[in-house]
Amino acid sequence: MLIVLHHSASEKDVENIKKTITKMGLKPVAIPGAERTAIGVIGNQGWVDDAPLKGNKAIMEIIHVTKPYKLVSRDFHPRDSVVTLGGKVRVGGKSPFLMIAGPCAVESRQQLMKTAKFLKKAGVPVLRGGAYKPRTSPHSFQGLRESGLDLLDEVRKETGLLVVTEIVSPEHVELVAGKVDILQIGARNMQNFDLLTEVGRTRKPVILKRGLSATVEEWLGSAEYILFNGNPDVVLCERGIRTFETATRNTADLAIIPLVRKMSHLPVIFDPSHATGKRNLVGPAALASVVVGAHGAMIEVHPDPEHALSDGPQSLRFKEFEKLLARVRGLSAFSRQKLF
Amino acid sequence: MLIVLHHSASEKDVENIKKTITKMGLKPVAIPGAERTAIGVIGNQGWVDDAPLKGNKAIMEIIHVTKPYKLVSRDFHPRDSVVTLGGKVRVGGKSPFLMIAGPCAVESRQQLMKTAKFLKKAGVPVLRGGAYKPRTSPHSFQGLRESGLDLLDEVRKETGLLVVTEIVSPEHVELVAGKVDILQIGARNMQNFDLLTEVGRTRKPVILKRGLSATVEEWLGSAEYILFNGNPDVVLCERGIRTFETATRNTADLAIIPLVRKMSHLPVIFDPSHATGKRNLVGPAALASVVVGAHGAMIEVHPDPEHALSDGPQSLRFKEFEKLLARVRGLSAFSRQKLF
Amino acid sequence: MLIVLHHSASEKDVENIKKTITKMGLKPVAIPGAERTAIGVIGNQGWVDDAPLKGNKAIMEIIHVTKPYKLVSRDFHPRDSVVTLGGKVRVGGKSPFLMIAGPCAVESRQQLMKTAKFLKKAGVPVLRGGAYKPRTSPHSFQGLRESGLDLLDEVRKETGLLVVTEIVSPEHVELVAGKVDILQIGARNMQNFDLLTEVGRTRKPVILKRGLSATVEEWLGSAEYILFNGNPDVVLCERGIRTFETATRNTADLAIIPLVRKMSHLPVIFDPSHATGKRNLVGPAALASVVVGAHGAMIEVHPDPEHALSDGPQSLRFKEFEKLLARVRGLSAFSRQKLF
Amino acid sequence: MLIVLHHSASEKDVENIKKTITKMGLKPVAIPGAERTAIGVIGNQGWVDDAPLKGNKAIMEIIHVTKPYKLVSRDFHPRDSVVTLGGKVRVGGKSPFLMIAGPCAVESRQQLMKTAKFLKKAGVPVLRGGAYKPRTSPHSFQGLRESGLDLLDEVRKETGLLVVTEIVSPEHVELVAGKVDILQIGARNMQNFDLLTEVGRTRKPVILKRGLSATVEEWLGSAEYILFNGNPDVVLCERGIRTFETATRNTADLAIIPLVRKMSHLPVIFDPSHATGKRNLVGPAALASVVVGAHGAMIEVHPDPEHALSDGPQSLRFKEFEKLLARVRGLSAFSRQKLF
Repeated sequence: MLIVLHHSASEKDVENIKKTITKMGLKPVAIPGAERTAIGVIGNQGWVDDAPLKGNKAIMEIIHVTKPYKLVSRDFHPRDSVVTLGGKVRVGGKSPFLMIAGPCAVESRQQLMKTAKFLKKAGVPVLRGGAYKPRTSPHSFQGLRESGLDLLDEVRKETGLLVVTEIVSPEHVELVAGKVDILQIGARNMQNFDLLTEVGRTRKPVILKRGLSATVEEWLGSAEYILFNGNPDVVLCERGIRTFETATRNTADLAIIPLVRKMSHLPVIFDPSHATGKRNLVGPAALASVVVGAHGAMIEVHPDPEHALSDGPQSLRFKEFEKLLARVRGLSAFSRQKLF
Repeated sequence: MLIVLHHSASEKDVENIKKTITKMGLKPVAIPGAERTAIGVIGNQGWVDDAPLKGNKAIMEIIHVTKPYKLVSRDFHPRDSVVTLGGKVRVGGKSPFLMIAGPCAVESRQQLMKTAKFLKKAGVPVLRGGAYKPRTSPHSFQGLRESGLDLLDEVRKETGLLVVTEIVSPEHVELVAGKVDILQIGARNMQNFDLLTEVGRTRKPVILKRGLSATVEEWLGSAEYILFNGNPDVVLCERGIRTFETATRNTADLAIIPLVRKMSHLPVIFDPSHATGKRNLVGPAALASVVVGAHGAMIEVHPDPEHALSDGPQSLRFKEFEKLLARVRGLSAFSRQKLF
Repeated sequence: MLIVLHHSASEKDVENIKKTITKMGLKPVAIPGAERTAIGVIGNQGWVDDAPLKGNKAIMEIIHVTKPYKLVSRDFHPRDSVVTLGGKVRVGGKSPFLMIAGPCAVESRQQLMKTAKFLKKAGVPVLRGGAYKPRTSPHSFQGLRESGLDLLDEVRKETGLLVVTEIVSPEHVELVAGKVDILQIGARNMQNFDLLTEVGRTRKPVILKRGLSATVEEWLGSAEYILFNGNPDVVLCERGIRTFETATRNTADLAIIPLVRKMSHLPVIFDPSHATGKRNLVGPAALASVVVGAHGAMIEVHPDPEHALSDGPQSLRFKEFEKLLARVRGLSAFSRQKLF
Repeated sequence: MLIVLHHSASEKDVENIKKTITKMGLKPVAIPGAERTAIGVIGNQGWVDDAPLKGNKAIMEIIHVTKPYKLVSRDFHPRDSVVTLGGKVRVGGKSPFLMIAGPCAVESRQQLMKTAKFLKKAGVPVLRGGAYKPRTSPHSFQGLRESGLDLLDEVRKETGLLVVTEIVSPEHVELVAGKVDILQIGARNMQNFDLLTEVGRTRKPVILKRGLSATVEEWLGSAEYILFNGNPDVVLCERGIRTFETATRNTADLAIIPLVRKMSHLPVIFDPSHATGKRNLVGPAALASVVVGAHGAMIEVHPDPEHALSDGPQSLRFKEFEKLLARVRGLSAFSRQKLF
């Protein structure tokens, strides 16, 4: 249950309402950073009888919510949220289609700098690169870890690009948040609730990937953890789901993008590299995301995919990426004029 | 194994090669309607030693195939196939993006005629409408069956629209093929091999929908049955697959479209109505199919979706369809100039 | 809607009720072979107002049904159905655990007879063997077809074993029903509704396999087609579903067996060969089916699996089958005494 | 690659081999706690040329491994591992079928103590109970957390039962390991590699649940992380996978149990409560796990399921559990005599 207050509500009104809720055997929760003054009510199993709150003049509206999420829903925040990255790049709403690109993993200073300079020149504002790599086997390359973070930090200082990297443990939040502009929660950690809570306590924007077998409801529930802990700057990222079909690495669930946009006010981007797993499908899938209404795309690009330490087969070469970038820009301009 | 002959090969050469194959314990199959004179070899389990055929001057090339399909593959027919519908409308290759529209089920003369006239005016060349409806329960509306076919026949004569309808039994082939221009094999019958064989013996174009849980390989294997039985005019139709996600009726597997186009020369269209199951997602999904390279789309439209006997929630109203049609046309024109 | 009548209801009562239903715009259907005199009502979309029937003294109970099935449900037929095969072997209820075994495909007289004699000696009452093989590719072995049927007929006459074979087309029903004792509908044809209707018109028992991606509700809906067309002798067969996991051929959905037994009165058997696809998992899965309450199992056995034309890797050798048979019998006896 | 040494190999031999591996550009890893002296080799992408190691007399065998796991495989450790819990209860190999039971979540001292006393009397050696509950929504009950741990600690001291609880963050490892006997990694954290690494550094036994959409290979890869970090005491727990079927909460993948037992030497138990999600299916599924060769089962039981704060519908009442326990014991005794 969400209790939305009139702008005129006083501190004392808020205290009174909280006391009433406590007497009802429930727990009031102040909802931080929202555009309306509101109190969330938790601790209920199912429907709550709101009689004790009816008639309170400070209350504008009582919203009964049976979904696992409240703060991320359109019910609570009807207009598109726009998230500002690194103080300068905007994603969501009517902002330009955001391109994020870079290698799967940070492998070396040279590999990263070469890619960064290429992207800088191409006008791509955000560099991606994994320092901590979650890998199925402990015997696989696990990323350069701390030294990978240092390289990312160095490159962003030198090029002025914003940098996003995956964070895999609540213990790393402070360290990682000090070195990059945007935190990424990967598919395998989408329901790592302690990690979600921890990044919810920072003020860094978070890209939240959908889990391999997460329903849309579960995905929004995970985003809710971040907002609920105080961080409103969440960008959802569809990256394909696991199905019976093995002809592609995952199944790109593109139709879910307009659905999520109806359910939530958060920006939604798309990762065609993991969604398809095949270099020659990345382009078509990226273009599709533009016309279904994604706010951006995150694409793997590598100076030398044949020798990449991970995800080589789905990484674009520089020339391929340039060609795709031009198409995405053209299609995005066309879509805004003619489709949306 | 496919044995491709030189154009100079004589009847006698062909007979000799067939005899050699038979001696090898295998079965030669003449491959009908292909652009190259070729003999298929079947009956093998795994790899075949082609030594007895080596050196034969009539043979241009021996192609070893380990996939479940040969005739539908790009290996065998490198260029895009173009299928002509009803002697006048073309789909595949560089042909214009094909729109097929109409109600899920034929319900009445009035419903069908009203829809047909609307589509005619809008410039849509093909009307869809189910006379035989495969339904989970025998207690659900099963379609008007024979009288539905008669209505379709009447409408195509009156409007000049081409008509496609689903066929559900080998016993109906002659009847249905006499009343409509295009036969549709539904998702539930994708591996009804007797039905595939039967429609393979007609000369009517066939729209072959992907099964709910069919892999791309199985789908192409089913198309192979139709070509193998003599009918080269197959149009593949992606319509969503069954996954764990229930927020949409099915999961639209859009990335598979460019993949299938690389594997096969057959035209591929998309059904956004069944793939999403939600009216407000049909448009975005249809637009996405344009940019991933589909050759057309099949969309459910109904004069009064609230009272449709089936699939109401995913059927577009006339006005909605008109708006989508304009967008698809604009996007298609743009894509051909700028993307492909 | 089901209308259950008192035993005292007369022919005239039945006629009157049917007239009332017709006036309500719906269609009355006599429900054949049931333990209660009942009239089914079809043609409705959603809830039916039963006011016109209320107060009719011949009516004992009106059951509103919103599921896709009525006749197969426990609501309608509370006690376990027992199906008699070939006039002598019973499956369902408290009948002994039924073993069905044999090769995937009928390959030769020798192969079939050898297997049949082995099974006869082992006390297995039903032989399975495919004459028509639904195969992904038209280039794979399609079964011996008519001559395979003749071999099955010959073997059943010579050995006295009952025989079950898959039927793949409505056109074959008369032919196949004349040669074997039990008809099997395979997973790929579970929603081939014309085929279901046709076998529903025979008096041969039908083994109905669950489709690769069929929900329990859809499976029961398919069984409903057979009962609705007059044939009450349906045996359900779980054979694994298609999931993301490829370590086994399918995923054996064993927990569904007790669930289906609660929903429906029909006997349920299990096919561990297709469910697992691996010889060394067939035994454990078969044993599991005994303790979850399956009424029988259908197992692939072959005199020489290494040279089988299909499904060799999942076929048991004679010795392996004998060992499993002894275990199944022991476990079944134990279960009946101690578990059920 | 695994290098297995002769028992006669000296410290110096080991050092020499490590140097050779380093020169090959790879990394040698001592394999702790194994029954054979061995050196693992990591850092390779694909096949390694072992020529530099050939002929070394200290080496008994070189095992090339291409799977994501080495230490958990039968190749490396052919015999069943037996894990000792709390210094007194054994699971795996020929140890008695292990029963673990208790509420989904620790709710109160009374609820926990009542359950513990019941289990103690029934002879169940291990109590389960969640202190930290991973929940889809931040608005759902998250568990009593630290105070839940204290209750578990109190109850184990008072009753002498062993206690297992889920751990959700690497930061909690020290705290949780001090209060309970066994750590559980839940399905959502199966690929939380930092957590796996951290529990790998303790000496507490770990129950590792399979992820909702994890393949067997990925599951074993996760177990490998724990062993690789020094903790050999891992018990695998199958708990159902996510599929298209929603009639059960998950799909119990029982056939995977004998498969995993062939692939790995680790004990495997089964959680029928989460696998089915329905009280009346828990019993049949638990019995099935006995006959497929599981080493134990973990079952949710609650003094008052109707008022449970989570998982009420799948929790057994005390009487139901008692009845099931007697059956499991009877079946287990029978199976050991007659089936295995």
